[in-house]
Amino acid sequence: MAKKVKTNKRQVILEEAAKLFKAKGFSGTSMRDLGSQVGMEAASMYNHISSKDDILESICFHVSNTYISQLREIEQLPVSYVDKLKALIQLHVRLMIEDGAAVSVANNDWKYLSDDKLQQFKEARKAYEKGFAELIEQGIAAGEFQPMNVSVALFTILSAVRWVELWYRPGRGISAEELEENIMTILLNGLAK
Amino acid sequence: MAKKVKTNKRQVILEEAAKLFKAKGFSGTSMRDLGSQVGMEAASMYNHISSKDDILESICFHVSNTYISQLREIEQLPVSYVDKLKALIQLHVRLMIEDGAAVSVANNDWKYLSDDKLQQFKEARKAYEKGFAELIEQGIAAGEFQPMNVSVALFTILSAVRWVELWYRPGRGISAEELEENIMTILLNGLAK
Repeated sequence: MAKKVKTNKRQVILEEAAKLFKAKGFSGTSMRDLGSQVGMEAASMYNHISSKDDILESICFHVSNTYISQLREIEQLPVSYVDKLKALIQLHVRLMIEDGAAVSVANNDWKYLSDDKLQQFKEARKAYEKGFAELIEQGIAAGEFQPMNVSVALFTILSAVRWVELWYRPGRGISAEELEENIMTILLNGLAK
Repeated sequence: MAKKVKTNKRQVILEEAAKLFKAKGFSGTSMRDLGSQVGMEAASMYNHISSKDDILESICFHVSNTYISQLREIEQLPVSYVDKLKALIQLHVRLMIEDGAAVSVANNDWKYLSDDKLQQFKEARKAYEKGFAELIEQGIAAGEFQPMNVSVALFTILSAVRWVELWYRPGRGISAEELEENIMTILLNGLAK
């Protein structure tokens, strides 16, 4: 029970930290800011987290681990490359919708990770891009995708969804499902009829 | 002739400034840095430009004016909405390829523009997005584009091309034409066959 409460408090601290880092940047956020956001003394917070670096690591690797485990699951699915890519894009966008602040921190503040963690994070990102690119390459080889430069396809798709994290919030007059559907329609089938 | 030399020198200063601002940021670049880059004393540079703010304004409005005049020309073309959108995306990408440093500065350092110029730049950007969105909306109404949320289509397209400015340079193993063609294929016709 005590362990559970501790985990939840850590979770709350991480979530509030992600929002603050997104709004003010990692370097612009102090532990004091974070304490007043979560309603705890800085000293009490250290029962749940060990440092601001610890928080940044948890957020960044939560995002990269989620992306990579989604990729690994999709790679194993017995479906077409079109369906694999649809699933990958859909889950990629969904994490931005459901956990936008964390994705934003992983996208913008990863450079403040300390040495070995920085290296590890870069490798995780590279592994994700590599797996994503291989899926596109195999889909082209299988004749399911239009023949094209794989890097261009990869970066166009990853870049195409980046705005979601900055824009999406409830009240935009569009559901998460419709947003995912519209983006997949453009990237897989094109805007033209 | 004297006027021509002056214009050219101003042009050289603007181009080198864009590269420096892209690399080190507007606030991280001093007039001294710029002087040593173009091989002029700071004092001589003031014969051609009036301030660092003057340089930033010229770069940002060069980009926004180019984008808007491309849009206005395309709006008048007697072609289908598919062809209008193709032309708009192609020219949008081409400016990133041909003038990547300036586009990067306009994308990232516009926030350092001074008050009224800042307002003017935001309005220019809004006008471009509005014209771009209207073209999509009209194409959907004409039955040429898939029915979808216009904002999602607009931001997906604008976001999809943002990486080009960071990535493209000669030696990437792909020509500017092929890059433009691949991106248009994805956005207009989709990656799936």
